[in-house]
This record gives sequence, C-alpha cells and structure tokens, in this order.
Amino acid sequence: MAPRVHVGPDPDPELEAVVTAAGGRPAPLEQAEAVVWADSQPDRFPARLPEAVRWVQLPSAGVESWTGIVDRDRVWTSATGAYAPQVAEHTLALLLACARRLAECAREQTWTAPDVVPLAGSTVAIVGAGGIGRDLIGLLAPLGVEVVAVTRRGHPVEGAARTLPADRVDEVWPEARFVVLAAPATAATRHLVGAPQLAAMRRDAWLVNIARGSLVDTGALVEALAAGEIAGAALDVTDPEPLPDGHPLWSEPRALITPHVANPPASWKRSLVERVRENVARYAAGEPLAGVIDLDAGY
Amino acid sequence: MAPRVHVGPDPDPELEAVVTAAGGRPAPLEQAEAVVWADSQPDRFPARLPEAVRWVQLPSAGVESWTGIVDRDRVWTSATGAYAPQVAEHTLALLLACARRLAECAREQTWTAPDVVPLAGSTVAIVGAGGIGRDLIGLLAPLGVEVVAVTRRGHPVEGAARTLPADRVDEVWPEARFVVLAAPATAATRHLVGAPQLAAMRRDAWLVNIARGSLVDTGALVEALAAGEIAGAALDVTDPEPLPDGHPLWSEPRALITPHVANPPASWKRSLVERVRENVARYAAGEPLAGVIDLDAGY
Repeated sequence: MAPRVHVGPDPDPELEAVVTAAGGRPAPLEQAEAVVWADSQPDRFPARLPEAVRWVQLPSAGVESWTGIVDRDRVWTSATGAYAPQVAEHTLALLLACARRLAECAREQTWTAPDVVPLAGSTVAIVGAGGIGRDLIGLLAPLGVEVVAVTRRGHPVEGAARTLPADRVDEVWPEARFVVLAAPATAATRHLVGAPQLAAMRRDAWLVNIARGSLVDTGALVEALAAGEIAGAALDVTDPEPLPDGHPLWSEPRALITPHVANPPASWKRSLVERVRENVARYAAGEPLAGVIDLDAGY
Repeated sequence: MAPRVHVGPDPDPELEAVVTAAGGRPAPLEQAEAVVWADSQPDRFPARLPEAVRWVQLPSAGVESWTGIVDRDRVWTSATGAYAPQVAEHTLALLLACARRLAECAREQTWTAPDVVPLAGSTVAIVGAGGIGRDLIGLLAPLGVEVVAVTRRGHPVEGAARTLPADRVDEVWPEARFVVLAAPATAATRHLVGAPQLAAMRRDAWLVNIARGSLVDTGALVEALAAGEIAGAALDVTDPEPLPDGHPLWSEPRALITPHVANPPASWKRSLVERVRENVARYAAGEPLAGVIDLDAGY
C-alpha cells in the first residue's frame, strides 16, 4: 500500500506529483506516516509531529538550524549531497577566481597584470570531503592538481592523493595553496579556521568556504587578510550571515564574497524534487533512505 | 652531427641548456642553421637572417605581429598549442565567473543575490576549436555542458556534441549561452563578432574572448552590453590592447577584463622551454616540427 506523505508547509503540486510518481500518496499531516518539508527555515515546522510520522525529509543539506526539532523518535533525512554538483561547480568557480585573480581584475579600472599563478600543479585541501568534496574532486581531475582530503575518520577518498583524519587537519595548513572548507557546521567544526590556522597557512594560500560561516573565525580572517598573512579568501558563506553593510570584508581587496548562492535558486528546487523522488521510492520499497541524519554527529 | 641552434635575442642559459639536452648545439647566429627566438615582440628580430638558417622557432602562439618577417625561404614554427593548457584553464575560470556572476559579486558592497545560472546543462560554443579548444573540452567534460565546436573545415572535434565549419558559424549565435572565441587573428577572423552577431546572440548569452582582441568589434560590443543585448562579456584580450584608461569597458557592469594573462608569466617560460625541447629534438632527428606556420592560412 502506498505510504501517505505530507508535503509542507505549503501545497506544492510539483512535489506532490513526484511523491505520487515515486509510489507515495499525498496526505494531510494528521493522516501521514512521512513528511516532506520544503521550507529551509524551521520557523513553520509543527511544534509536535503526529506519532504516526515515521520519517521526515528536510530540504537543507546542512541541518544545524534544525537542532531541537530533529528527534530520536523517527528517521530524519537531510538533502545532503542533493545539491553537491551545484556547490562543487561554485567551488571550482571560486578556486579559479582566486588563482586567476578575477576579483582584483573585476575591480580594476586600468590595464595592470595581477600575479596570476595557475591552479594546475597546486595542492588543494578539501576539509570535510563528503558529497561536495567528491564532486569537486571529479571537476578538478582534468586540471592537474593534487588533492588532500580531510574526513572525520580518514578513510581514503577516491581521487585524493592523500586522505587525513580530522585529528590531523593541522597538517594541511602549511601545505595547501588552496584550502576548501566543505565540512558540516557542528560544535566540532566551529572556528575550525581561526588565528592559529591562518598563521599556519602559506602566505600564498587561498581560503575558500562554501560550507557554513561558523567554520571560520571571521574576526581572525579579517585581521589575517589585512595583514597579508594569506593571499586571500573566497566566501560563499559568512558569519554573521547575511554579512552586514559596512563590514570590513566588503572592502577587503583580498576577499571575494558571493551571497550564499553556490546552490542557486534556479536549480535547488529541481535537485530537491529529485531527492524526494529517490527517497519516497526507497521508503515505499522499505529500502535505506539517503541522507539519514546522525544526531550524535550532528549532520 | 648536432645542429647548431642560435638562441636570441639575449643569452638564455635555460633555453641553451635545453637545446643541448635535446641534441642541438648553441651557436652564434652567423653559424646557426636554426634560431630559437624568445622575445614575443618582433622589434629586435634580425632584419635579414643568414641563408644557412633553415628553421626559426617563434615564442608566441599567435603570429599575426610577425607578418612580413615570416618568409617562404625556411620553416617557421610558432608555439601554438604550447600554452593551451594554461589558456584553457583561464577560459574555464572566465566561463564560471560569468555563470556564477563573480565580477558583479566582487564589486558588490551589500548582500544581494545575483541571478546565478549554473554552467552545467548549458551549451558552450567554441569558435576556433584548436589546441586551446580541445584542452577546454577536456576541462568542461565533468561539468555536464554541451559543446558546439567551430573549426575552419568542420572536421569533428572529439568531445564536442557537434562541429560546424567556419562558414556555418552563424548557427551558434542564437544557440549558445556561452560563446568562447579561440580562433587565430587573421584577416578572415577580424570582427568575427560585430553588431549583427551580437544581435543574433541570446539575451542571456556570455561572450568570452581569450584569443585576440581583433576578433571582436569593440565598439559594437560596448553598445550591445550597454543595451543589455547579451548578458555580459569576459575578455582576456581587447582591441585596442592595452585597453586605455577611461575606456567604457572599464566601467561596464556586464564586462570583466583580465589583462592578457591567460598564459601567465609564471608559466609561459616553462611551456616555451618544453616546446623548444620537443622541436629541437625533432629537428635533430629529421622529424616534422610542431606548430609549423602556414603562411597562406596566416597561423
């Protein structure tokens, strides 16, 4: 029998159609055993879910703002990995913009050659090499870079020259010319990059953050950039976010800010629909779901 | 016997060492049968070469400024293809910067999401798909784009969904969301993109020129950008070049200029050395040289 799936918070014909196509049956919350939630903010999420709800699909890849809502009474899935191809493309754009000094060029009003050093031949560290990291490694493959991956446990990541466990992350700071932060936002990753890490980085290093703003100590980054301790930073996420007008990062010549658009509106809905299709089909078939949240790990 | 090769215009121990390693013997011009010229400007090139010189290696990929010097009395080679990996990387950087609106972001002082549309899923036309085009196709492969190549004769280019001959180039203007100009500068490619072509392009199209400034009618481009006829342009080469201070392209929000740095100084010498190594070895072995200039084609 087709499982009853509630789509919320608003009626969404596209998601409801895909629920049906995947073998589910759209239903009101009170009659549902599964919930697909399409609002990335938790404000409108029901304070109490009916006991019958066995599974909740959230729309975000990162779920740090859902702390206190995700419980142990049912299975919760995030959209982790669903947006990875998009975010990996944006990350590649930022890496190349750093190497090719595009932000400086964009602000220039005169023909002055910046110090371009190709991405090819360089070492790129991916700190938190999950789905985005794996997709990024695929995009980097033809460019001839050396990838050093860092994962929680250090199990070898395909395509990386080396994979380090999280407790050896300090080895990458002095080595990499490009450091990509792609780790989830948890208590353990808060201020993963602060003053000591920035000081340990190469002076020609670029920091790229496409994960969450909390991974970087913004104050320390502002100081490191102003002092020229690193070559620069490209940030799709910031802390605070949105970055307020007048913040020093807006006028820092070594910084490039993109306003959390790695997973652009033009494609995020399409990706979410695909994930919902996949997970409803798995749920209906009694198969393991993609993106099950590990409450202990926090993502 | 090792062929005598003159390295000019200045003594260059690195190039002389590679001449020797490749089986040649550095020699003064008067005793040489081959010349390796390391100055990309023709100003200091000898007005008359000794008759004994059978081969001249020029340092540039494009040789339009060597017209009148290249003759039919001997073999001339350009460095065509030697810098292709570098230029392809820069082209990818510019394509992604267009798709991800990085120039606008770099100039922004407030958190405003631009209209990001991913490169993935789009059609990229490469007009003049030679060595740079082939390398670019390799870099684009994992990004999931459709490549339409245009070559002089239209022989299929590997990795391209379609290849058109030059006389059907007009088919790409209304189709491609990204148009990359990678053709040599010749009489036939002058103002390849002018007002009619810009008018035929999609309104959401981006023009990327990493070849030579003369391929684009700058005045027509300035007007098309100001009128919003296309989404924007990223130019590593301009006409005139250098682009003078105060030129309207410097203040055009839809334009991104990089000052002819696709083949950056940090790596061009290394690439030239490799090409000299390859060609001196071929010359010494009596094999065909790489990059022989076709005077009739002009490149």
